[in-house]
Amino acid sequence: MFENKSTRTELSELGEFGLIKFLTENIVLKNESSIKGVGDDAAVIDYKNRQTVVSTDMLVEGVHFDLMYVPLKHLGYKAVSVNLSDIYAMNATPKQITMSIAVSNRFSLEALEEFYSGVYLACERHGVDLVGGDTTSSQMGFVISVTAIGEVDKENVVYRSGAKENDLLCVTGDLGAAYIGLQLLEREKMVYKDNPAIQPDLQGHDYILQRQLKPEARKDIIPLLKELGIKPSAMIDISDGLASEALHICQSSGVGCNIYEEKIPVDTATAMMAEEFNISPYTCALNGGEDYELLFTAPIAAFDTLKANKKISIIGHITDKNAGCNLVTKSGQTFALSAQGWDALLKK
Amino acid sequence: MFENKSTRTELSELGEFGLIKFLTENIVLKNESSIKGVGDDAAVIDYKNRQTVVSTDMLVEGVHFDLMYVPLKHLGYKAVSVNLSDIYAMNATPKQITMSIAVSNRFSLEALEEFYSGVYLACERHGVDLVGGDTTSSQMGFVISVTAIGEVDKENVVYRSGAKENDLLCVTGDLGAAYIGLQLLEREKMVYKDNPAIQPDLQGHDYILQRQLKPEARKDIIPLLKELGIKPSAMIDISDGLASEALHICQSSGVGCNIYEEKIPVDTATAMMAEEFNISPYTCALNGGEDYELLFTAPIAAFDTLKANKKISIIGHITDKNAGCNLVTKSGQTFALSAQGWDALLKK
Repeated sequence: MFENKSTRTELSELGEFGLIKFLTENIVLKNESSIKGVGDDAAVIDYKNRQTVVSTDMLVEGVHFDLMYVPLKHLGYKAVSVNLSDIYAMNATPKQITMSIAVSNRFSLEALEEFYSGVYLACERHGVDLVGGDTTSSQMGFVISVTAIGEVDKENVVYRSGAKENDLLCVTGDLGAAYIGLQLLEREKMVYKDNPAIQPDLQGHDYILQRQLKPEARKDIIPLLKELGIKPSAMIDISDGLASEALHICQSSGVGCNIYEEKIPVDTATAMMAEEFNISPYTCALNGGEDYELLFTAPIAAFDTLKANKKISIIGHITDKNAGCNLVTKSGQTFALSAQGWDALLKK
Repeated sequence: MFENKSTRTELSELGEFGLIKFLTENIVLKNESSIKGVGDDAAVIDYKNRQTVVSTDMLVEGVHFDLMYVPLKHLGYKAVSVNLSDIYAMNATPKQITMSIAVSNRFSLEALEEFYSGVYLACERHGVDLVGGDTTSSQMGFVISVTAIGEVDKENVVYRSGAKENDLLCVTGDLGAAYIGLQLLEREKMVYKDNPAIQPDLQGHDYILQRQLKPEARKDIIPLLKELGIKPSAMIDISDGLASEALHICQSSGVGCNIYEEKIPVDTATAMMAEEFNISPYTCALNGGEDYELLFTAPIAAFDTLKANKKISIIGHITDKNAGCNLVTKSGQTFALSAQGWDALLKK
């Protein structure tokens, strides 16, 4: 009506990261309390001795989740988990969240109750209070926005930018399961759509399904590292796939890295299902995303301690920037890492 | 697919406030740092000497705004303003925001740039840093979620719950303009839809249009009250209409109130347009909403100071709970206040 159209650049030309960079690159932080703004897993605000860590995520039906196979309780749990994961990735402890939702009237009160039961379960598990939010209607799908707030001692905060040459590159847990779980769910959805008489065959795939539907943010790693006397030099959570996150750390830190394929931790269940789908499990780990494990770098002096810990895998090391970011395969070949992970703006 | 349907309660049966109450009434705050959770304009978190104030809002296309007549720059400005308004309503100072958006590919980069130019303008005006957010795709409309974070000295925080009998009930600025501005926009939209050859007639209505499209959060009131030596006993921002907000204060404080119709501040432009629409301007003020002025109570000792200030109108006083919440008309009739304001869940 009152709109004026001139040149037009498609969002897909930039991708999510490009768009964020474009929209935020002119920001100059003005307040003394704004320690870290856009550009890390979470913002850091210093109101006094302890720093406040704030992170926010939006989940959109049809983009981030499919209610055809995602139970609402799991969705509520996941919406909180993925935000807390960002707080942990700052080496911080989450304390509060706000939860905003937009829902259409196709949702009943019982459906929302189910959703919130998952939200509260996640809050309880992580010792977090729900302290605010907004509830509004939507003409179409279900939209969720969560802000997580946490605290950290100034000297303990870990950014993406602290990785140094020769540091070890480490990852918690195992990777690729969330992605292969999603493939399984999508396959069974197709089967069901073609013939609703056929019941979905999800038996015996608990692990990969749970990794997709109900991911656990790594609450245990922050105290574990403290106990081990290790302060990561850089850290990030794996939401977009190992390759993408490793590139983030290297870019922010001005370094390169080598990741050894054979060192990437993959669960047996993931490997078996990947084989069924004829995908390399390492592709799932590198590009699948949604694992919500922590990727971090640590001084080489921590090698023995990290090596001995079953929750952590050393998957490579940090190199000079000019060496680039590489994957070294089992056969000894070297490939440049590329970020093919989850890109919300390219999704249909 | 895997869904199990049982009894069904429609969200519309509860309304927004009922739903929030239902979903949050079992919360027990666990952290020492969670001073105030759900139930006020913002959550209060105490990390040290200064308290952290956090507020969040979600704006959904087709529910909260119509892109047919809302310029994107104004929308960005408004999305920030309405959140900061909640921070001011705590007698606090906003310092940071996070901004999350979901957009479909019908939006161009230029369109988002326009939106963000409004966001940054509001940030600049209020001395606020954008410190985070999320950008994702949506299959349909445009969804915006903002979290505002502010700080306040512990002894200065003002809740909705502090109003005392005999306190003065005061409001900043004037009311009803945003609502009547919306009516004008809707009327011109209809005219345009019926006949696109007819250009919208918005000439000479700058004030009411600006109040609707580009509301200003009352940044000036917090330092003004401090300067005047007045600490409000209760405060809230007017997003849902004066009646609804007065009821919130009374309910939270366990008191009643009398509001005098003739004392409600209404701008001439509002009154004139209301007459054209054959609506009482006081109805616009009481039930229209989106004025983003501050409604507060103060001890009667502040009467002379408040009376002398042009930015503030004394519109009534706080009574005993049993007297109820009433509107006293110009003719001396008394009506019980009822909240007929904006109820997002009832909107189509």
